[in-house]
Amino acid sequence: MGELFAHQLRVRYAECDVQGVVFNAHYLAYFDISITELWRAAFGSYGAMREQGLDLVVAEARLGFERPARFDDQLTLEIGVTKLGNSSILTRHRISRDGDSLVRGDMCHVFVDLTTLRTAAIPDWARSGLSPWLVEPD
Amino acid sequence: MGELFAHQLRVRYAECDVQGVVFNAHYLAYFDISITELWRAAFGSYGAMREQGLDLVVAEARLGFERPARFDDQLTLEIGVTKLGNSSILTRHRISRDGDSLVRGDMCHVFVDLTTLRTAAIPDWARSGLSPWLVEPD
Amino acid sequence: MGELFAHQLRVRYAECDVQGVVFNAHYLAYFDISITELWRAAFGSYGAMREQGLDLVVAEARLGFERPARFDDQLTLEIGVTKLGNSSILTRHRISRDGDSLVRGDMCHVFVDLTTLRTAAIPDWARSGLSPWLVEPD
Amino acid sequence: MGELFAHQLRVRYAECDVQGVVFNAHYLAYFDISITELWRAAFGSYGAMREQGLDLVVAEARLGFERPARFDDQLTLEIGVTKLGNSSILTRHRISRDGDSLVRGDMCHVFVDLTTLRTAAIPDWARSGLSPWLVEPD
Repeated sequence: MGELFAHQLRVRYAECDVQGVVFNAHYLAYFDISITELWRAAFGSYGAMREQGLDLVVAEARLGFERPARFDDQLTLEIGVTKLGNSSILTRHRISRDGDSLVRGDMCHVFVDLTTLRTAAIPDWARSGLSPWLVEPD
Repeated sequence: MGELFAHQLRVRYAECDVQGVVFNAHYLAYFDISITELWRAAFGSYGAMREQGLDLVVAEARLGFERPARFDDQLTLEIGVTKLGNSSILTRHRISRDGDSLVRGDMCHVFVDLTTLRTAAIPDWARSGLSPWLVEPD
Repeated sequence: MGELFAHQLRVRYAECDVQGVVFNAHYLAYFDISITELWRAAFGSYGAMREQGLDLVVAEARLGFERPARFDDQLTLEIGVTKLGNSSILTRHRISRDGDSLVRGDMCHVFVDLTTLRTAAIPDWARSGLSPWLVEPD
Repeated sequence: MGELFAHQLRVRYAECDVQGVVFNAHYLAYFDISITELWRAAFGSYGAMREQGLDLVVAEARLGFERPARFDDQLTLEIGVTKLGNSSILTRHRISRDGDSLVRGDMCHVFVDLTTLRTAAIPDWARSGLSPWLVEPD
């Protein structure tokens, strides 16, 4: 099996709330950044996939909040692909700081045709591009 | 059992992405608005709970995306309390437009002491304030 | 001359930062909501203008911050049209709470053709639709 | 005189709107990131200033939008200090892509005492820390 893909991110002031911690919805936006960066590693860019007539729509998300992140924290966003179905992709996410796990999550996206928005089968070039980051489900 | 609490919300232009639909992370922010409005109905305001020395931290969230919401859509945010534990509260969420379900979700929050941030037992006044919106889990 | 258009808005928890006040960038998003609601009053909706093949792009913005807004505050967003040029529109904005001015601003937008994105002359139906809210510049 | 401080930033998918470009309010959040990074260069971090009992509040902002930024663009955020008053600081901002200017702006912040939030004189250590980035006003 492959390994997790990692990307560094600095918490912005505007992302922290009155409690002094990152507001929960921003972690879902962080997961989206992980996908953008995994796509860059796999295909050159997210736009490169769209030029092939494909796009992604989100179907499900699950988040577990373990510890809060704070302003100016340097976070590590990790992502792995836990399943490539016929047209769906499951990703597993972990956000950590200095090795301490802060947030874990799973997302399910579906590949769609960019113009019709109908479900599209994952093409072989996408499967092979993502294969280095295929990991075992927990 | 009780009933779902409902609140109306208009989708903002800034919440819609290149696909022309509400970006997924904003639904988690919408769930937070539901909680704020349920708190207003139950206790007068979210601030009223904080004046009693209590606050909430999020522990888990789960979202299922069924149909996209678009700019200027008038949405109905529904929320019910599916469980009141010793210190945890489970809420069930549904976002709909003209009766069509768009997004469903569940959140788990934990009551904490406002100053120590340690887990706090849900006081009786909070249980009774929330009781009209206690609903059966699915 | 006309009068200011007013719209009510409740401050969201996610819009407040570590200082406990609305983060400055959100006021620019509030100004955008004022424009959306003025368009609704003037033309039925922002989408109605787009169906006529027109869109708006922002050219300039200026904001003066007088007092902070806080979580759960009920704000009044006011907007007036201070100038309708050949293709540009100047709007003046004021955000207040219980009559106290919090933020003032001015924005300049340009009408563009929806498909070519080239500058478009403001059509007569748009001038007459906006005329009730034409106000004197300060 | 000094020079502009520069920081690189990648446009996020969630920051782009239905027109496919960065929504205007996010540029104000980008300016805030420039200030955070200038503070890191000048004082070690924004938090280091707060440990000295000082904070900043925004008083004015002005933005001029020249060209749109798009998803995944690599932007250069530049910032210079155009004036250090008794307690106020003026910064000039420029956001560019491959040397093309996209957005220009100016901000005015006021130093305040962290606990009383009253206006505070800029201390000598702050003046000297910021001096490498003092630039001529236009």
